[in-house]
Order: sequence, then structure tokens, then C-alpha cells
Amino acid sequence: MSQCSSIKVAVVGASGYSGEELVSRLLHHPCAELAAITSRQYAGQPLNDIFPRFTGQDAADTLEFTEPDPSILAQVAEVIFLALPHGTAVEYAQPLLAKNIKIIDLSADFRLNNSETYEEFYGNKHPAPDLLKRAVYGLPEFYREEIRTAQLVASPGCYPTSILPPTVPLLKAGLIKPTGIIADSLSGVSGAGRNTDISFLYSECNESARPYSIPKHRHLSEIEQELSTATGESVVIQFSPHLIPVTRGILTTQYLAPSEKFQSETEEQALGEKISHCLETAYATEPFVRLLPAESLPDTKNVTHTNYLDLAWRLDRRTGRLIMTSAIDNLVKGASGQAIQSFNLMCGFDETTGLL
Amino acid sequence: MSQCSSIKVAVVGASGYSGEELVSRLLHHPCAELAAITSRQYAGQPLNDIFPRFTGQDAADTLEFTEPDPSILAQVAEVIFLALPHGTAVEYAQPLLAKNIKIIDLSADFRLNNSETYEEFYGNKHPAPDLLKRAVYGLPEFYREEIRTAQLVASPGCYPTSILPPTVPLLKAGLIKPTGIIADSLSGVSGAGRNTDISFLYSECNESARPYSIPKHRHLSEIEQELSTATGESVVIQFSPHLIPVTRGILTTQYLAPSEKFQSETEEQALGEKISHCLETAYATEPFVRLLPAESLPDTKNVTHTNYLDLAWRLDRRTGRLIMTSAIDNLVKGASGQAIQSFNLMCGFDETTGLL
Amino acid sequence: MSQCSSIKVAVVGASGYSGEELVSRLLHHPCAELAAITSRQYAGQPLNDIFPRFTGQDAADTLEFTEPDPSILAQVAEVIFLALPHGTAVEYAQPLLAKNIKIIDLSADFRLNNSETYEEFYGNKHPAPDLLKRAVYGLPEFYREEIRTAQLVASPGCYPTSILPPTVPLLKAGLIKPTGIIADSLSGVSGAGRNTDISFLYSECNESARPYSIPKHRHLSEIEQELSTATGESVVIQFSPHLIPVTRGILTTQYLAPSEKFQSETEEQALGEKISHCLETAYATEPFVRLLPAESLPDTKNVTHTNYLDLAWRLDRRTGRLIMTSAIDNLVKGASGQAIQSFNLMCGFDETTGLL
Amino acid sequence: MSQCSSIKVAVVGASGYSGEELVSRLLHHPCAELAAITSRQYAGQPLNDIFPRFTGQDAADTLEFTEPDPSILAQVAEVIFLALPHGTAVEYAQPLLAKNIKIIDLSADFRLNNSETYEEFYGNKHPAPDLLKRAVYGLPEFYREEIRTAQLVASPGCYPTSILPPTVPLLKAGLIKPTGIIADSLSGVSGAGRNTDISFLYSECNESARPYSIPKHRHLSEIEQELSTATGESVVIQFSPHLIPVTRGILTTQYLAPSEKFQSETEEQALGEKISHCLETAYATEPFVRLLPAESLPDTKNVTHTNYLDLAWRLDRRTGRLIMTSAIDNLVKGASGQAIQSFNLMCGFDETTGLL
Repeated sequence: MSQCSSIKVAVVGASGYSGEELVSRLLHHPCAELAAITSRQYAGQPLNDIFPRFTGQDAADTLEFTEPDPSILAQVAEVIFLALPHGTAVEYAQPLLAKNIKIIDLSADFRLNNSETYEEFYGNKHPAPDLLKRAVYGLPEFYREEIRTAQLVASPGCYPTSILPPTVPLLKAGLIKPTGIIADSLSGVSGAGRNTDISFLYSECNESARPYSIPKHRHLSEIEQELSTATGESVVIQFSPHLIPVTRGILTTQYLAPSEKFQSETEEQALGEKISHCLETAYATEPFVRLLPAESLPDTKNVTHTNYLDLAWRLDRRTGRLIMTSAIDNLVKGASGQAIQSFNLMCGFDETTGLL
Repeated sequence: MSQCSSIKVAVVGASGYSGEELVSRLLHHPCAELAAITSRQYAGQPLNDIFPRFTGQDAADTLEFTEPDPSILAQVAEVIFLALPHGTAVEYAQPLLAKNIKIIDLSADFRLNNSETYEEFYGNKHPAPDLLKRAVYGLPEFYREEIRTAQLVASPGCYPTSILPPTVPLLKAGLIKPTGIIADSLSGVSGAGRNTDISFLYSECNESARPYSIPKHRHLSEIEQELSTATGESVVIQFSPHLIPVTRGILTTQYLAPSEKFQSETEEQALGEKISHCLETAYATEPFVRLLPAESLPDTKNVTHTNYLDLAWRLDRRTGRLIMTSAIDNLVKGASGQAIQSFNLMCGFDETTGLL
Repeated sequence: MSQCSSIKVAVVGASGYSGEELVSRLLHHPCAELAAITSRQYAGQPLNDIFPRFTGQDAADTLEFTEPDPSILAQVAEVIFLALPHGTAVEYAQPLLAKNIKIIDLSADFRLNNSETYEEFYGNKHPAPDLLKRAVYGLPEFYREEIRTAQLVASPGCYPTSILPPTVPLLKAGLIKPTGIIADSLSGVSGAGRNTDISFLYSECNESARPYSIPKHRHLSEIEQELSTATGESVVIQFSPHLIPVTRGILTTQYLAPSEKFQSETEEQALGEKISHCLETAYATEPFVRLLPAESLPDTKNVTHTNYLDLAWRLDRRTGRLIMTSAIDNLVKGASGQAIQSFNLMCGFDETTGLL
Repeated sequence: MSQCSSIKVAVVGASGYSGEELVSRLLHHPCAELAAITSRQYAGQPLNDIFPRFTGQDAADTLEFTEPDPSILAQVAEVIFLALPHGTAVEYAQPLLAKNIKIIDLSADFRLNNSETYEEFYGNKHPAPDLLKRAVYGLPEFYREEIRTAQLVASPGCYPTSILPPTVPLLKAGLIKPTGIIADSLSGVSGAGRNTDISFLYSECNESARPYSIPKHRHLSEIEQELSTATGESVVIQFSPHLIPVTRGILTTQYLAPSEKFQSETEEQALGEKISHCLETAYATEPFVRLLPAESLPDTKNVTHTNYLDLAWRLDRRTGRLIMTSAIDNLVKGASGQAIQSFNLMCGFDETTGLL
């Protein structure tokens, strides 16, 4: 593990599932010192009372949830993770940025470049549109250099993380058309957060599979923004999320149209080689993207509790489509693990520190 | 419940999950007498030793698995359900049909009209191609009259049952295009059968979601056959099955292209009314198809242990697509319940007998 | 099914899991007409909006939740099921009993004979101690005749239903000692109700097993009351409930001390025959208690969605103990099914009506 | 992390769940080099084909399953983990011990001191009774010093690991009686191994809870051996294992009889302090035993994927009993984690290396 001096960090909103995962990873991060964890609901209570899982892990035994006070936070931490609901993060980001604190925000508040798109998808005017320009979209596979020097990183949503890396390199290479893309995703229940809602009770989710928020889930806004950026034209896609009875994991199946036809076995093979080459060029050296071998397909259980994104594809000569499948852990690569990837980049650490 | 005289029935292959569900339903069917259940593996053992769940339910306590001997079966039963693996059913169907027994086959052996398609998808020559012409595809919503007089019913696969009823009426009405159809399905693990295979152990399926058999699952053959029949032209579709950790249930999300554009709210509303009208015309009086109210989406837990197919759709003006979602219990409407629907039709009983 | 004239019934508190199960069973009960369902939370909404599962089942499509107004309820129903939280049921029972309505209460409000025990276990003075004397404990296997003529039935708790029937006949026969009894129970999450509480979210219960409320769970009060009644002396037992990730089901393992020693194989066999004889005498003709065959042990999956209680036992010559195991569905035999058993008895119907 | 020179290790039987967990931990162990993994079933196949989860983790990408040949294994590894079925481990242990290889065996083959007890519980004569004397029972909390110098460690069974540490210190201190102990345990399905058996299919275990192997499970033999060693007298206990639908985790509830009575609050408090003191003396400095705070009870989800054993207790003045509850991950502290604890001790590493 690389040598590193310890950076003081804080997690604001540490009592949700993303917050818990951040705390879990940061407690063991060799170059981070977890200086504060906040939770309005649990302020004053020891971390271990709420998450007994952490008991005995050094620093965990002395941590206590506090009220999220930006001026205090700015004194104790150099980098602050915001794991707050959409619309709340911006309130904390503003004063902290003003004090030159580096922010990694896991909400949707800073993911969109365009405040009008924000308003269309989130239903209210963006409270700090000027900050949108300062934020870097925290997908290291695409924005590594920008993240290194960012003061404000908008860590991507869980679904976009499962959808963008498999697709963007192919779009950029012109191998698939930017039209007609469909992303069909299955998500574990932790994606709904650690909030009381009858819909997410055990007895409502067990032995249940259901679509929701179709056809216009909020994550479409950032997915389409990034696909449009990649192609230079306005991309509109179909995205259908489903809830399935697992705690963690997102599995996405995408239906893509190759730019060239492949009606013979030879053409299929030629196209397959181009796709392989494109994805290998993009990801062979990426530490957290795994291109599965030819016979394999992703399974969420192979990526849960890891920061990996697994990826496999099939050409279907019968329909002329490319089927792209991917799996991540929604709380790790889809949230807190990816945020720590950005943290490592921002601090000059090895990008995989605390993540393998 | 309608008056009826009792028909003697047998279940060949009664120790699998479809067989178990057939036994469960037939034990309580007011017009059926379960005269024999067979299982090579358990021949000689009482039903309740293998399925203790049935204990105490009258006839269940005296039933015993026997070897599946066609000549004996022909003596004790008038209608025989075959719940056997693909390729095995045909061996029993032939001698039984010769003795004028009515057969409801739950395997794929008689679902295809065309023995070449069978060979393409199942990998071997069909052993009795002449029988294919005699078989009726047992989807009562489409073939009710043919089933009434059939001697051999080929009960549909679980996936096709979730895919065809939502789509066929729209295709027939010309409301959607026959090209570019995508069906993305999630299935419970009971669909894999009651067979030993490491892949279906609890610890392999729990906390797991995975695609399989893409892009060319065998059920494509019957789906495409029925879509082609509906439209009068050769239809090729995309179909992607996924395994999720529920015991029962299939959820299917289909991506369809309406024949007409709908770029304004008015056009969307007009198209929506046509779709509504088409589906209501097709299904308002169907006992087992439920068109969900406008705000609802299907959830497998609302159909498990029932013979219902739940159906809801959304138009997406952004992409120009129609999203069709449906849910069934793979073992009931997707297998044994639907087989009993055919049984009721073949015997002149009320179609819902034993199914509500 | 037996001939019967239809009795008008109502379910007060129909939006919880016990309420839902009552509605499900009463909709199909050939001698009951579901005249009203109440829910403060959902008053004014159709049943099917909250429980889409019921859609299409005749009466279900016209039912709507109403405010629970006793004077209106008394006008529309002859028998009323109360599926309310503890402490609330009594408020409705009083005015309804005053109007000669028959009440089957699924809460703990009327299960105890003694208001002091109520106060000890439920923490507040019983608001209507006089009613305690009028209530019959609704365990038909023990109080069948009393239930037939009762105006107020206190339907037992789920845990007591899994614990009492296996033990009481042995205690009465003097085959086991009334001291040192231990009941160790596992319950599905639906037992915690359809209420928002972080502890019962899917992500908190999945992959989790935990004891709770030890050593003094409230159900101890009724268990000990009934064991004391059976023996004529004051019985105190150990009871440890645990939560496990299933929706439905209770599995109980009890540790009992036979009154006689069995140190040789012969003694073990002799004692075993006495136990067998005792249980068979008690339950051979009971429709809902199943004594499993010698080699079998209960499994909750064999009783879920049924009104059965499955029961098996083992003598352990090494320790001198009798191990008694039992399984029920907490929402059926442990709540709503058993309440309907009482309903059938109170109305003079066959006890199994609507329950097989 | 402590400095250490790398020790070459091998895992024999690496394709089961314990084997997989060993591989997972050893791949990341800073002082171990995984030199060989064997599997008869998968010999010749890359590790990642069978466990895609490991892909990308350095050494994992080059590992391949081999045939388990002792003479080859003795050349490549200094310490060998045997993760084989009972009865098979001894065949490999003998030749390897002869070549001075250190062995950590996860089977039951060397756990018992007494070959007669082995025969009573495992049904066949022990094939190498002389080796039993050389083996050290690998529960570091009790046999730390012996493990350090052992050549053959018999790593404890999963159930015993959840039962012994909570009980032995109290027995040794004379705080509880050695008679009448009852251990009631719930286990995840991975405990049944990665073997094909209909009983452990997803659809058989989901929504199921069931006792098994009562009253005489094989693990009783080692539990009673260790309790007898602790007390100096022959201890016989009651042990009831149950299978519940989680992949990982064991929860054990034990019913114990304190040596002294506690009928007043004062007596209860005095006894409670003695118990606290005893457990704190035993475990305050143990890295992997966590005494939960007063209000808490164990939950398997707090220990899964960790090497912790969580422990909490309650005195019940009503019954005079001490209720002891504990939770472990059956594959970590209950198998592979504990084996690595022994490995660390045998090699002189910090005991927690690779386990936090």
C-alpha cells in the first residue's frame, strides 16, 4: 500500500446506507482520518449504537454522531463527504466551499451542468446554479484528471454508474448509434435508502419484483447529459429501473444498435473484434472495470462489497443488436466506493487505496 | 362453483415444481379426481413424504408416486398432464394419444408448429413431427375454441405467457410495429426446476441477479411463432431472461414501437386511448388478465399463487416508445394454472374452476 | 362445502397484515359477506388501491376502506373482527358489544383473565377489566364449546398458538413437568406488522437473524395463563423469540422434561408410546393439527398460507429431555385463520369453512 | 500492519464455501503467498472461472485448481489448509505431516481426542487414532499457546465456535452449572456446503425455517469434549440446529443455570456483576470477541464477513436462568477466519493479520 500522510475527513449524513459504507471504508483507509460523522437524527449517540457492526475497529469506538454544523466541520476536516438527500447537500456545500474545504457530494445536487435540466427532473429551481459549473462529475474512468484538481466533485448516481462506462467508449468510437438506447436496470433495496416507508419493509420487498419511476426516472438527466457529452449531440434514452429483493447490487442490461450491420458470421466476428478492442482499450488498465471472459455474464453477487464494475456483451445476429450487461454494488462503485476513488485522486493517493 | 361430474386425471412427472403445483390445484379441483401421480425418482413413496405440505388434504393422504407406465395410466385417467423435461414428454404422449387419452403437456415438445424451428432451438430432430400439427397452443386467451376440442394441448412456456398477452392484441390492431420488440424478463428460481445444480443452490441465488441464455433462449421460438401468427409476417424479437432471488414470479418489461408518432400531449392522449381501448376490448372479460389502473405498475407479489396476469403500460413521449410491463406466477399462469385452464375448457367446465 | 346462510362481517383495522389476511379469507368464505373494512389511514380509498392483489375477486372490486365508526359498523355487520393494535381494540369492542355485535378480537386486549397480569406485561391499567371475564380465549382446540356461544373471542397471539397446542395435552396427561419449560421461537417479519420502522426494512432484515424481547416478551402472559389453567398450578416458562428473514411463519422448538425417566431403550420406547398416544388422542381428529410422521420435522414452508399447525417431537435419552417442534403461519393459524375458525364455530358453520 | 516474511500456503478443497473464503482471505493476507489451490472437480480450471468474484485481484488471475497431490503440495507449501469433507482430510493430513508440513484442518477429522467418541458420532472407526493426540483444537481464545507450536490444528466446527466461547469462562469460574445446558442454533445455508442436494436449492430454503439433526448432531461431540475439559467432569448438553434462509451466519441462544440463586433485584445485580466481570476478564483483550453493551443483542448481520463473535446475555429472575446469545459468520469465525487466526499464531504473525 502506498505511503501517505493522513487527511482529515468528515461524513455529513453518516446514518444512511451510503454514509455507513463511507464510514466503513474510511475507518480502514490508510490515508484518511475520520474526524467527524454527522447525523441530525442520531446526534449525540456513539457510532456503534447505531451500527454495532463497527464495534472494536479502533477509531469506530470513539466516534459519535454530531449535528452537521458547517463552521465546525470546516475546522476539523479538509475533505468532506456529503451523503445527504437531494436538495439538502447544496446547503452544506456552499459554506464549506467558501472555506476552501474540498467536497465530494453523493447527492444529485451538483451532477448536472444545466440548471434547467435540474429543474425539469427535480421539480424545483436549483438553489446555486453557479456552483454547477465548478463541479466535476466524479466518474474517474472518464474525468480522472479533472477530479484530481476539483474542489467540488459530484459523485454519480448508482444507475448512471452501471450504464455509462459500458456505453460511452462505444459511442465515442462510433461503434454504436446514439439513438434508441435502452437501459433496463435491477436494483437492490438499499438503493431506496435507510428511510421508513412501507414500500421498503421486508414483507413488501421479499418475494417481489417491480418496475418503478418509468418512463422518467431522475437519473435519466445525468445519464443523458454524459451520453450527450460523449457524442457531441443530444442523446435521449429509455431507462427502466426495477426493484428486486437483494440488499445490494445493480444489474443493467442495455440494448444498443451497432453502427454497422452484421448479417454473416464473418461480419459478426469483425464487429465483435472492434467492440472488444474498443472496450479493452478503454478498460484494460482501469483498476475497477472488469471485462468478463467470453462465456461469462455478470452476477451481482460477484461485485457486492467491492468497487468493481463487471461487464459482458453479446451480439445478436438475429436482431442486429448489441446486448450489454453490467453489474455493480450500488453502495460501493455506485456510491461510496466511487466517492473514495475521487477522494484518492483529489489527495494524490493511489486511486485504489482503501478499495481493494 | 359450477356443477360438474368428476373427471379422472393423472400427473406424469409430479415431483417437480410444476408437478407439485398441478397436484396442489387438482386435489382441490371440484371436478377432477387425481387418479395417479408418477415419478421415476420417488415411485413407491407416498405423496406426503416428498411434499409434506399436502398432508391432511383428503385424497393427498392416500396418493403414492408410481412409475410412469402409459398403459396403466391410460386405464386410470381420461386426461393426463405431462410435467416432464423437454424431449421426454413426447415419449408418453404418443402411446397415450393412441389410446384416445387427452393430453395437456407442459413441456416444449408440442409448442412449435414447425419441426425445423424445434431443431434449431432444441438441438435435435423432433421425434414425432406429425404430432405437432395436432397440438393446440394452450393459451386460452388466444386459442379458447381450439382448446375446447383439442386432444393434445401444448401448454405455453412461462416467459411466453408473460410476453404474448400484453403484445398480441396491439400487434393485431396494428397499434405497434412488429419490428424491434424487446422483452426483458426477470424470473424466480423455481423456473429452473427441482433439480440439483450448484447454480440454483440457496447460497448461489440469494443476493444475486444475473442474465442468462442471452441472446437466444429457447422460449424465443414459441414467442416468435405466436407473434408471427398474430401479424401474418415473420417476427423476430429480442428476449433477455434474468434470474432473481424470488421463488415464484416473472416480471417482464417490453419495449415496443407504436405505429403512430405522438409528439404532443394531444397525440399521446389519443394514442393512449387507442391502446386502452384495444386492451380493454381484448381483456375486459378475460377472467385472468388484469389491466391495472393508470397509476399502478405490476408487482410479482400481487400475482404469486394466483392465475392472474397483471399488465400496465406507459407511453414515453421522450423516446416515442410504449413500455409494457406484466407479471405472472411462473408456476401458475406460467405453467400449472394455465394447464388447468385448458383442462377446464377441454372438459366443458367453467374456465375458472379450481383457479380462483 | 357445507350449506350456510351468509353472515355479514366487518374487519376493523383491515390495512395491516392480519387485516389483509382476514379480508383475503373472508372474500372467499362461502358463508360470510364482507360488509365493511375500515382503516383510519386509508379511509376513502378502494381496497384494491392498497392491496392490488385482490383485484378482480368479485366483492373486492367494490370494497372501500372507511373510518372505523362503531355505530355504523353495528348497523352493517353481525360479527366484527378487530385487527387493531393492542390498547385500541378495547375502544371499539365496548360500544359494539353493547349493541350485541359478536366480536373476534385479534389483539391482546382480552386474552388475559387477570387485569393485574395485563398491567404487568402491557404497562398500563386495563381500561375495561370487567370485559376480561366475558372473553373466551379463541384457541378452538382447547375452547371449542366456549367459543361456540361466546360473544367476545380473544384470538390468541401467534407465538402462543405455536407453543400451547404441542404442550398442553402432555401437561394435562402428566407426561411432562410444568417446570423448566423453554420455548425458543423464530418468527417471520410480517409478525412485526405493516408499520414503518427502520428495524423492519428489507435491508435490515435480509441476511439477519436476531433475538428480541428476551427474557420477557408480552406473549408470555397468555402462554403462562393457559399453561397454568391446564395444570392447575402457576406455571412460569422461558420464552425467546427471534426474527428471521422470512415473510411468514413461526417455528418453535420447546425443551420439556418428561415426568418419568427413560434411561434404557425400552423405557424410551414406552415413554414414546405414551406421548404418541396422548398427542393422537388430542389431535387425531383435529382438522388443523398435523402430527408429522416419525422421521419428519416441521418446516415453515409446509404450513405457510395454510391454517395447519405441524408438530413433531424427539426424545433425547442423553439429556432426558423431550424436544417438541412446531410450525405455523403466523398470519393464518397464528392470527386470521384461527380467528375465522372461531367465526365458523360462533356461527354454527363447519369449522374448516374457508380454511382448507 | 505488522512486518512479516511471506509463507507459502495451499488450500486443499478450495472449491467449497470454506475453501472459497480461505482463498479470499489468503489472497489479501500480507504474510501469505497462495501457492496452490486444489479441487478434484475443477482441476485444470482457472480460479476465476469458478469464482469470478476474485478476478483482478493480482494473484487470483494466475491461480488454477490442481489435483490434490500430497507430494506436490509438500513441495510448494509450508502450511496447508484442508477444507475437505469429514473422513477425507485424514488421507491428506497423514502424508503431509510425514513431510513436516504444518496442517490446519477444517474438517472434523482431528477435533476429538477420543477415537471412540469419533466412532459414536461419525459412524466409522477413526483411520488414524494416533494423530488425534497430536492435534490441537484450533480455538485461539482457549488454546492460543498450544496452537503457536502445533503442527496439526483441528479448526473447530461452526456451531461449537458459537457455543463454546460464551459458556466456557462461566463454567470455569463456577458461575453456571455444567448440567442442563441447552444450545439452540440457527444457521445460514452456506453451512450445508457447496454441494448439490435438493434440500438446499433456493426454492427449498427460501421462506423456510426448519430444525434438523435433532437431538444428536455430530458437533455435539466436540462441544461436549470441550465443556468437559473446561469443567473436569463429563458434560452432556442439548443442542438443536435449525436452518434459516440466510447465506451466512449462526445465531445461538443458550439456556444456562447459574450456580447461585437470584431472587431479588439485589441478588440479580450481584450475579450480573460476577458474570460481567468473568466475561470481561476472559474477553476484554481478545481481538475477535465482542461483549455487546447492556441494551444490545446480537444480530448476524453485524458479524457476517467478519471474524467477530458477538455476545450478549440476560438474567431472567422469573425463571432463574441465564440466557446467553451469540452470533458469528459460519464461514469466517466459524471456519476460514478462525483457521487463519491459527495460521497467524503458528507462523508468529500478529493474530489479527488479514482478518480486520
